[in-house]
Amino acid sequence: MKKLKSKAGRYGAGLFIAEGISIAREIVNCCPERIKYVFVTEGVETDFDISSFECFEVTDSVMECICETKTPQGMAVCVEIKKSTANLEELDFIVYLDHIQDPGNAGTIIRTADAAGVQAVVMSPESVDIYNSKTVRSTMGSMFHINVFYEDEYLETLKALKASGFVISAGDLSAEKNIYETDFGEKSVICLGNEAHGISDELLEMDINKVIIPIEGKAESLNVGVAGAIFMYEILRRRKFK
Amino acid sequence: MKKLKSKAGRYGAGLFIAEGISIAREIVNCCPERIKYVFVTEGVETDFDISSFECFEVTDSVMECICETKTPQGMAVCVEIKKSTANLEELDFIVYLDHIQDPGNAGTIIRTADAAGVQAVVMSPESVDIYNSKTVRSTMGSMFHINVFYEDEYLETLKALKASGFVISAGDLSAEKNIYETDFGEKSVICLGNEAHGISDELLEMDINKVIIPIEGKAESLNVGVAGAIFMYEILRRRKFK
Repeated sequence: MKKLKSKAGRYGAGLFIAEGISIAREIVNCCPERIKYVFVTEGVETDFDISSFECFEVTDSVMECICETKTPQGMAVCVEIKKSTANLEELDFIVYLDHIQDPGNAGTIIRTADAAGVQAVVMSPESVDIYNSKTVRSTMGSMFHINVFYEDEYLETLKALKASGFVISAGDLSAEKNIYETDFGEKSVICLGNEAHGISDELLEMDINKVIIPIEGKAESLNVGVAGAIFMYEILRRRKFK
Repeated sequence: MKKLKSKAGRYGAGLFIAEGISIAREIVNCCPERIKYVFVTEGVETDFDISSFECFEVTDSVMECICETKTPQGMAVCVEIKKSTANLEELDFIVYLDHIQDPGNAGTIIRTADAAGVQAVVMSPESVDIYNSKTVRSTMGSMFHINVFYEDEYLETLKALKASGFVISAGDLSAEKNIYETDFGEKSVICLGNEAHGISDELLEMDINKVIIPIEGKAESLNVGVAGAIFMYEILRRRKFK
């Protein structure tokens, strides 16, 4: 379990750890087939059934050793890393994370994507590892609700989506059109770029729809999690509300 | 300077510390009158003039002692805490932070508010101290661009704004109307509540416009910084874009 604290350890074993009772509940409800082990400390009670899983009762000190949080809530679940099973071309609302580096930003974007009705979040290979403890927690369970996966053939997949009718839009501070003046299409991909450097050059070189979120004040830019939310909810609003 | 690392120390002295060259540049440009001292380490060069301030050249170890960041960029500015000078009733776009607890969330909201053209961010007395190092950094300079202050007479001020024609809207997960079905008014206040408990009871008991951001997927809620951004940009969109 301690090996799963490093990225190499997680990918070597194909496993990661999710900490806490509320996230354990989400996994039991959404994808019990991915649960490898459950760890509980003595006296912890849950309102969901864990008897069908391989369970270990551990001491507080072992639990602290397994978990990254300082005060784990007495439960940790060891979960299988998922390979994508989604056929992206059948979807109509996808978010691409292009070299996102901050675990909290990635987690927040996945949570917002779940809320906004996005069906898949595709990560470039260089993006932050979403199976680290901080991202798992900051998704608040949403990484178990929607398809979230890394795509080695990142640009090729994007080109295929474009060829199949998706409008590929990307937030770019140098864009001339703003998000309220553009057509995101009936099938939409939103690309969100690196916190410091924005969308990668390879992606900008593709013929994609570059748009900017208007800035009225003196702020130079927006947090990428915030920018993602404004994009996703603008698309949701147009599709569903007016 | 070390005393300014605690909230009590900051308020006792009426001063706080802003770390790094880019934020120092913002302060020099936006509100040089609030600068009390500038600390630089040997060899640090800036593209802005600090000669008119009281400057101290310090060693790397002193700089590390002043700063919270592990690798300070060789510059820290000691800045006066500002009392509000804004006449809120003359404004038309205000954000209220009702017991926000997380420094990063507060910082992100202030940054987004600046971007969206909000004129003032009013904080309830129990909200997180925005003069802590993490919030100062996460506002990316925006706390020096717009009015941000604590209001002891929090609810009374809100009532006065309502009486003077503001529509007071608050994000509330139990609301029946969603944000796309409501009128935010020509003069708008947006209230954002505590990360765990939402809007406070005292505020919900006022006759305010309770609205929800629609959730399409299985997410139970949104991060408060994300929710704030969706509110603010929806108002900006209606006022300016269509």
